[in-house]
Amino acid sequence: MAAYTPDARSKGIRLSKRTTYDQELVHGILNEVPILHVSFNAPPNDDMPQFPTILPMLGAVGTYKADEDAHIYLHGSSVARLFKLTNGGEIPLCVAGTLIDGYVLALAPFHNSCNYRSAVAFGLGTLLEDPAEIEYALILITNNAIPQRWENSRSQATNAELTSTGILKVRIETASAKVRNGGPSDDRADLKDDALTAKTWTGVVPAYMTLGEPIAGESNKVKQLPEYLDDWVADVNSLNEQKAVNAVDPTEE
Amino acid sequence: MAAYTPDARSKGIRLSKRTTYDQELVHGILNEVPILHVSFNAPPNDDMPQFPTILPMLGAVGTYKADEDAHIYLHGSSVARLFKLTNGGEIPLCVAGTLIDGYVLALAPFHNSCNYRSAVAFGLGTLLEDPAEIEYALILITNNAIPQRWENSRSQATNAELTSTGILKVRIETASAKVRNGGPSDDRADLKDDALTAKTWTGVVPAYMTLGEPIAGESNKVKQLPEYLDDWVADVNSLNEQKAVNAVDPTEE
Repeated sequence: MAAYTPDARSKGIRLSKRTTYDQELVHGILNEVPILHVSFNAPPNDDMPQFPTILPMLGAVGTYKADEDAHIYLHGSSVARLFKLTNGGEIPLCVAGTLIDGYVLALAPFHNSCNYRSAVAFGLGTLLEDPAEIEYALILITNNAIPQRWENSRSQATNAELTSTGILKVRIETASAKVRNGGPSDDRADLKDDALTAKTWTGVVPAYMTLGEPIAGESNKVKQLPEYLDDWVADVNSLNEQKAVNAVDPTEE
Repeated sequence: MAAYTPDARSKGIRLSKRTTYDQELVHGILNEVPILHVSFNAPPNDDMPQFPTILPMLGAVGTYKADEDAHIYLHGSSVARLFKLTNGGEIPLCVAGTLIDGYVLALAPFHNSCNYRSAVAFGLGTLLEDPAEIEYALILITNNAIPQRWENSRSQATNAELTSTGILKVRIETASAKVRNGGPSDDRADLKDDALTAKTWTGVVPAYMTLGEPIAGESNKVKQLPEYLDDWVADVNSLNEQKAVNAVDPTEE
């Protein structure tokens, strides 16, 4: 399977055996996370040291042309500060997403952990200008969040909409994913402490995002929830719970 | 209510009417997010531009001494790269957390949105050395994630545990929160388009973190789930769903 090439950026932060550079895994995590976190360096202020800035953003990973690599497409207002910083060129970005799959409770707090999947990508972002690729990115981001929503709504954008939407296209230079699975891993001494084990519950509490009962808007005229939305809610709810429970399988640890 | 003072860091990214600098709101979001995202600048490599790095980390906001401000405490291994970067001094950090409350579906994809609560804090991180404050931070982070877990497990740390745990204490210089509530906000022209409104469902699909049925570990000896854990699961599940549903109330928009 295709993998990213580790370098100082993606390697330095990922010393553990849980790290992989698998592209499909990285893309899958970034696409499953509802809201990504994007970090960049704004020009420093006066005597202040360089602080990175993190913005929550909507985005998705996709391949626009068959002969291109997959890129991250980030959605924002075209007047946002980050978009202005590109200034016609490229801006160094770090894009991260983390999904929690469960709380891992051990005999001692020191050994508590979380089951999670996280991805961190480093790349250069440019502001899209080609209307065809902007439309591709809008469809990608919309349908990645809510499958089939693009074609089931007024998808023809107005000029005003297109000029006030900004899409950053991020060319991924390196990226990694980290996954923690399994149950608690306790100290031998704690496991032999009968008084402790007799009173301390250990195990995993699965955690996952649930979609609730859809709530129609004030102007909604469609009485019955369309099937593609009903399916989306049902699929997310059953898949997410299953992933969180599967992550506990101790053979994975 | 106490508020952070906006400066170029927290103001530049928050142009919207949805922004507040309320300390209690910022702290509440950071404490509710299961896994925080922390960004820092590693020393640059050769000819490469400065890329910020994002790490997923566990942490919580707390006040150690009554005459101190609230700080963010971040938990990690003491050998982690970020912790070494402090090098006995302070390191500029951005700490962010985002909670999704719902998917907002409008007549046109351009007006789709998310209900969410996000907090972004800028501050200087130092590596804790005082054992009493390290213990305070461990209790804070443990019980913030899983209420009452500290006192219901083997909470006396061994020397080996203490020396391999690192806690970063972040002095918050400025911070802001952004909250999006309400239903979809559609174009007037779209609302008058009877063919469009007749076929396009609009509204909000609430989204929230659920805790699943606890799964006992292989070495667990406690047959019945203790009440404090049962309460935690029930409380999280009812509160999170309620928050996501309340966020839809159109009077909030």
